[in-house]
Amino acid sequence: MTENLKIVLRKRPDGLPRRSDFDFVREPVPEPAEGEFLIRHEYVGLSPAARIRMDDRPSYAPPLKLGEVVYAGIAGEVVKSRHPDFRVGDKVNSFGGWQAWSISDGRGAEVWDTAIGTLPNSLGLFGLSGNTAYVGLMGIGDPKPGETVVVSAASGGVGSLVCQMARIKGCRVVGIAGGPEKCGFVTGVLGADACIDHRSPDFAAELAAACPDGVDIDFENVGGPIRDAVLDLMNRHGRVVLCGLIAEYNALATSTGPSWFRILHKCLKVQGFLLREFPELRQPFLRDMSEWNRSGRIVYREDIRDGLDRTPEVFADMLQGRNFGKTIIRV
Amino acid sequence: MTENLKIVLRKRPDGLPRRSDFDFVREPVPEPAEGEFLIRHEYVGLSPAARIRMDDRPSYAPPLKLGEVVYAGIAGEVVKSRHPDFRVGDKVNSFGGWQAWSISDGRGAEVWDTAIGTLPNSLGLFGLSGNTAYVGLMGIGDPKPGETVVVSAASGGVGSLVCQMARIKGCRVVGIAGGPEKCGFVTGVLGADACIDHRSPDFAAELAAACPDGVDIDFENVGGPIRDAVLDLMNRHGRVVLCGLIAEYNALATSTGPSWFRILHKCLKVQGFLLREFPELRQPFLRDMSEWNRSGRIVYREDIRDGLDRTPEVFADMLQGRNFGKTIIRV
Repeated sequence: MTENLKIVLRKRPDGLPRRSDFDFVREPVPEPAEGEFLIRHEYVGLSPAARIRMDDRPSYAPPLKLGEVVYAGIAGEVVKSRHPDFRVGDKVNSFGGWQAWSISDGRGAEVWDTAIGTLPNSLGLFGLSGNTAYVGLMGIGDPKPGETVVVSAASGGVGSLVCQMARIKGCRVVGIAGGPEKCGFVTGVLGADACIDHRSPDFAAELAAACPDGVDIDFENVGGPIRDAVLDLMNRHGRVVLCGLIAEYNALATSTGPSWFRILHKCLKVQGFLLREFPELRQPFLRDMSEWNRSGRIVYREDIRDGLDRTPEVFADMLQGRNFGKTIIRV
Repeated sequence: MTENLKIVLRKRPDGLPRRSDFDFVREPVPEPAEGEFLIRHEYVGLSPAARIRMDDRPSYAPPLKLGEVVYAGIAGEVVKSRHPDFRVGDKVNSFGGWQAWSISDGRGAEVWDTAIGTLPNSLGLFGLSGNTAYVGLMGIGDPKPGETVVVSAASGGVGSLVCQMARIKGCRVVGIAGGPEKCGFVTGVLGADACIDHRSPDFAAELAAACPDGVDIDFENVGGPIRDAVLDLMNRHGRVVLCGLIAEYNALATSTGPSWFRILHKCLKVQGFLLREFPELRQPFLRDMSEWNRSGRIVYREDIRDGLDRTPEVFADMLQGRNFGKTIIRV
């Protein structure tokens, strides 16, 4: 209670991050200055995007510096406040990172209304994952009833929501996930029409069989050979919503296929995106998602693990697919 | 005059096409049936896209069959007609292919008004090249004054027009071409702000220096490592107009770079396209291009070579960049 635990980057990971890539720094809980407030972290949300920032290469966000706390969304409670908009006892979201306490000046922070959803919900369903799923599918994918949507990492935080939203939009939904348990979840719980195990030796053939009318939208979370197999099936004028390339972050898999030919020959649109480009979708997202959540049309799975000091291991597990749903650390 | 020469595909080329990949068939000039007309070819337009159709793989057009005349746009004169809309003496464009005569039923054929431009002009400036340049740049690239546009294969049939149109639109234009002669043409005649020789050992550094504000539009004709170097410089929300991948057609160069990461991190839009998706741009294209051509704002270079039976060699030269402007065979 009087000590903070900060997990900071010691050295840039070579491939999968290991515990030794981080330093565990214990120091006194900081005091808020005028205009700031102190948050006790209850949950830290893990997201594959954090891996990108551990490398020293250009990205959509500046690389993490050595010695810096790993960037992450958190949910917690305001414990001390010298800020007019945040009061002691408020539940809040902010980007406090991999640590137990943080100071905020209010930028990027939001009071969370627990009538909308639980505190962990605020990190995934109503947080970056949900918002990303919504903006990517609706803003870029533009799904039409009867179209076929393929979703990779279909059981994950973003993918599981995309599957269900595409189904609500009247699309044929084909998930891709690793292993029978996840695939069973994608078809049995999320309601996808099919889910293909990317570990299957006949993966490409099974995917093709599940998409008899080709693929109109690829909601791409994975990249590498899995992405290339989807591109082979794309219909002309298909859309590739480029949300992530988790298989390529650690150079575990790279693309060797003729992916650019597919874009050229099939007149595809491939687009990366940031949430902040679509501010007009923020209100429709909150409205639709809370309605779907209330009415039970959306199932959202969270993989909550205890113990802040295990974060590096849980993070590496997630990057290898050893998680099941939105991965959240309970501090 | 009484004999046709048809150049047909004998076997699918392995890499660069060679003369031995084709058969030279001599047969009597065909006779038009009712509803058809006979064209004496005066010019055959060569286009890199024809190379794609020589392979037996999925593309935006069906592969050429063995024994089939190689597909190409031609310009010539109607010599016999049993078609109400085409009269003897009309100059016409059609897709007659690599041969000296062809029969048309009018589909894909158009009477050419020589008041608009010369007969070779109809194959490039006002044909597929011009139309492609216009639709790609205006319809997909959407250039804004002050933006930086990079054009690969900048001295070629499409690229040379893109350079000049982007300049007319008030953009900074940086061409990429092979060798000092072509680069001098791109800056000296086409008016690009810079042109980088992709054969230079410092190509990537020179390109970066020529784009101090980054790249907003990549008009991509080439692919491979040249494309990857441009992607490294793209600004966020840049547009990649994917027009061709000539460097990859023969597998002379493949992409090994992290091109998909660039799309993801920089929120790029990469789009392939076909002219027929933009019918609304046909009239603006003819209006703008004829005005620019008349007023001398557009320079269009044609590389006219004599002799139909040299077509395979000229075609291979073009695929290796040993041409200069729109490559046209004079029959």
